[in-house]
Amino acid sequence: MRYTQAVSDRLDATFAALADPTRRAILARLATGEASVTELAKPFAISQPAISKHLMVLERAGLIARGRDAQRRPCRIEGRPLADASAWLEGYREIWEGNYRRLDALLNDLQNSTRGRQATHRKTTKTQTRRPGR
Amino acid sequence: MRYTQAVSDRLDATFAALADPTRRAILARLATGEASVTELAKPFAISQPAISKHLMVLERAGLIARGRDAQRRPCRIEGRPLADASAWLEGYREIWEGNYRRLDALLNDLQNSTRGRQATHRKTTKTQTRRPGR
Repeated sequence: MRYTQAVSDRLDATFAALADPTRRAILARLATGEASVTELAKPFAISQPAISKHLMVLERAGLIARGRDAQRRPCRIEGRPLADASAWLEGYREIWEGNYRRLDALLNDLQNSTRGRQATHRKTTKTQTRRPGR
Repeated sequence: MRYTQAVSDRLDATFAALADPTRRAILARLATGEASVTELAKPFAISQPAISKHLMVLERAGLIARGRDAQRRPCRIEGRPLADASAWLEGYREIWEGNYRRLDALLNDLQNSTRGRQATHRKTTKTQTRRPGR
């Protein structure tokens, strides 16, 4: 139970940290290699303290780690929380593949109805408004 | 550019919605089938208005949709945002697999050093403190 709570808390922190475009951009930059705060701040139109705040959120979520070099304290990306978040989402794969299948069925219906319309020029409105399960 | 912004905004909303244990539990329940607010509130030790607030967050993120039945307004899970979040995380697979490979290498090192120690009873401290890339 305590283990489950810890996993849930970590997912909270990971998803909250990922819910920000600047933090996702920082991770994208770090995916190419380590970088100092100054290097990370450069491409963004925000202050270094603002970047530091984002880094703190990422560090608390375990998504980055800071190096020991006292001068640069380089940041590096840590993959583990991303793997855990991905594993959680993977549990819903059947759901979204099911939805995609529904969408495929809808598109097939529309294509068939279009072919039918091209052949007969009839029943257009009725066929277009019929949507499976919506 | 506008398209990229929309994708980024949707990821913000999805990750923020997923950063809560009750909302994740609601999605887990809805993965088994549609449910009304009353049915969703039952297993939770929180009020129906509190559940309704969570549902609003999920609905705004496109993670659930509400049925037309005026009485029950049943909720159903929508897979698309989960698929998009999963696709985003997938972009980092190499990172986390790289990290796991580092962890594998570390465990191998430790196992080898343990075997070495069992054979020789020497160099224990030196081997244990050596960690690749940390």
